[in-house]
Amino acid sequence: MPLLVTGTIGIDTVHTPTAKAEEVSGGSCAYFAAAAAFHHNPVRIVGAVGGDWPNDHAALLESIEGLCLEGLERRSDSKTFAWGGRYFDNMNQRETLFTELGVLEEAPPEVPESYADSRLIFLANSHPSVQMDLLNKFPDRQLAVADTMDLWINIAREELLALFKKIDGLIINDSEAEQLTEISNPITAARAIIDMGPSFVIVKKGEHGAVLVHQDGIAVIPAFPLDQDGVVDPTGAGDSFAGGFMGYIAASGKLDFETMQEGMAWGTVTASFTLGSFGLDGLVSTTQAELKARMSEFRTIARIC
Amino acid sequence: MPLLVTGTIGIDTVHTPTAKAEEVSGGSCAYFAAAAAFHHNPVRIVGAVGGDWPNDHAALLESIEGLCLEGLERRSDSKTFAWGGRYFDNMNQRETLFTELGVLEEAPPEVPESYADSRLIFLANSHPSVQMDLLNKFPDRQLAVADTMDLWINIAREELLALFKKIDGLIINDSEAEQLTEISNPITAARAIIDMGPSFVIVKKGEHGAVLVHQDGIAVIPAFPLDQDGVVDPTGAGDSFAGGFMGYIAASGKLDFETMQEGMAWGTVTASFTLGSFGLDGLVSTTQAELKARMSEFRTIARIC
Repeated sequence: MPLLVTGTIGIDTVHTPTAKAEEVSGGSCAYFAAAAAFHHNPVRIVGAVGGDWPNDHAALLESIEGLCLEGLERRSDSKTFAWGGRYFDNMNQRETLFTELGVLEEAPPEVPESYADSRLIFLANSHPSVQMDLLNKFPDRQLAVADTMDLWINIAREELLALFKKIDGLIINDSEAEQLTEISNPITAARAIIDMGPSFVIVKKGEHGAVLVHQDGIAVIPAFPLDQDGVVDPTGAGDSFAGGFMGYIAASGKLDFETMQEGMAWGTVTASFTLGSFGLDGLVSTTQAELKARMSEFRTIARIC
Repeated sequence: MPLLVTGTIGIDTVHTPTAKAEEVSGGSCAYFAAAAAFHHNPVRIVGAVGGDWPNDHAALLESIEGLCLEGLERRSDSKTFAWGGRYFDNMNQRETLFTELGVLEEAPPEVPESYADSRLIFLANSHPSVQMDLLNKFPDRQLAVADTMDLWINIAREELLALFKKIDGLIINDSEAEQLTEISNPITAARAIIDMGPSFVIVKKGEHGAVLVHQDGIAVIPAFPLDQDGVVDPTGAGDSFAGGFMGYIAASGKLDFETMQEGMAWGTVTASFTLGSFGLDGLVSTTQAELKARMSEFRTIARIC
C-alpha cells in the first residue's frame, strides 16, 4: 500500500523558553514523512521548495530510508515556506512570529506519474481546495486522511465541508474540533464531525494524548510521558503522530478499527522522539531499535490491568 | 487491610450549564468512601455532620454495603459543611459560590477505638495540621495517602511540607502540583514532590486522566471517555478516583507499583460513574456488574497494541 503525503517543506525558526533555533528543517510534510518512514516504504512526498532551501535540509531528507522525493519540486526562483514561532513557558501554547508563504502562493506541485498507484493519501494542513484537487487525482485510493487548521475553518469552511464528504478520516487538534463544531467535549465533537462525512476522526490533545472516534468504536491513548528536559521543541509532533499512524496502517495493509488503534500507539511513540530535539533531528537520529524499545516501555507505562 | 478515610461530609449546591441541584449529598470523605466500598470492606469513615444533615443523605450513606459509619459524629447543635459551586461551559473549570465551614471550624471528630487496626489511611483535603494529627494516631499504618488543595499550599505550606515527610503518597490536581513546585510539566513536578517526602505522587488531570510517578516507575492512564451527555456533574470525581484506587489496593493487600497501576485503572472507571449524576447518586446506583463491565470496556478502549 504505497503512502503519499502532500504538505509543506519548511524552514522554521523556533524560540522556546530556554533556547532558540534558526533555519530548522521543518514543515508538515517533512515531519509526517520522516515519521511514516519508520514503519513503511515507500513514503512518497508531494511538495515544493525554493532556491533558498538549505543543502543540509536536503541532505537530511535524502538520508531517510524509504522516502521517495520524486514529487519534491525545487523551484530555484522561488522562496521556501518559512515559519517562526515562540513557545510559552508551559510548552503547550505558542504564538506565530512570522509566516512567509513562498512556494505556497504559487501553483501546487505536480504529482509524478510513478505515484499513480498510491493507495493511502495524507493531506497535511493546506487550503481545502488544494487538498481536494490532490485527492481527485487518486480515484483508486483506499484511505484518504486530512489535517486542517483554524485558518481554513474560519475562511474556507464551505470548501472544508466539501472535502469532509470525500475523505475517510480527519486528524485535528482539540481546539480546532471545538472551533468546527462549537462542542467542547472532544468525543461529542468528533461524532459531530463524523456526521459531516469522515468515517473516523482523531482528536489530538498534545501532552494529553489523543482519542479516535470511529464508526466501529472509540480508542483513547495518553501521550508518552516525558519529563521537562525531554520536551525541547513540540513543533511537528502532531504531524509526526499522523505519520506514525498512517505509516503503521500502510505497513499492516489493514484498514480496520483495531489496526487504527494500534496505529495511534505507534504514532504516539514516534512523535515522542520529535519532541526531544529541534526540527527533524529527533526522528532522524532515532533507530528502529530505539523506537521499538520505547514502544515496549510505553506498553508497560500505559498498561491497563 | 482495613481502610480509613477522613474528610468532609457535605451538603452541596451545584450549578452546571444546563441544570441546578440543591442539597446534594457530597463531601470528599463521602465520595471517597462510596467509591472505595466497591472494592473493599470495611471502609471506615471519620467525619462530622451537623443537626441539619438531611435524613436522605444519612440513608444514602447507610445503604452502602461495606461502609463503617461508627466514626461519623452527629453534632445536633452544629451545621454541616456546605459548598456551592458553578461549572462553566466546558465542565472543566468551576467557581466556588459559597463555603460554610460549619463543623470544620470545631474540634476534629474522635477516632473510635475499633478503628485502631486500620492499615490504610486516606487523608482527604483538610488543613495539613488536622491531617497530621489524625495520621499520628496510626503509628502501625502500612500506607498513608493525602490530598490537599491550593488554599493550604498558600496559607499552610510549612505544615504541608511537614506532612509530606510522614505520608507515603500524595494525590493532587495538575494545577496544584504546578502551584506547589512552580513546574508545569506534571512528571517533573511529581518528581520534585517526591523529593519532599512521599514515595509516590498521582497527578490528576481531570478529563485527561492521571499519571503515577513512583520510586519504581511511571504509569499514565487516560480518563474513561464520556460523551457530553455523560458528564452531568464533575463534583467528587477526583475523590472517587482516590477511593477506587485505595479501595483496590486495600482489597489486593499489596502495596507494590503494579498494584498501584491497577488501582489507577479501577479508580478511573469508578470515578466515571460519579460524573454521570449529581452527588453520590452515580456511585450508589451502580452495581458491581456494571463496574466490571465498564472496566472490561475500558480495557478495550485504552488498549495498547
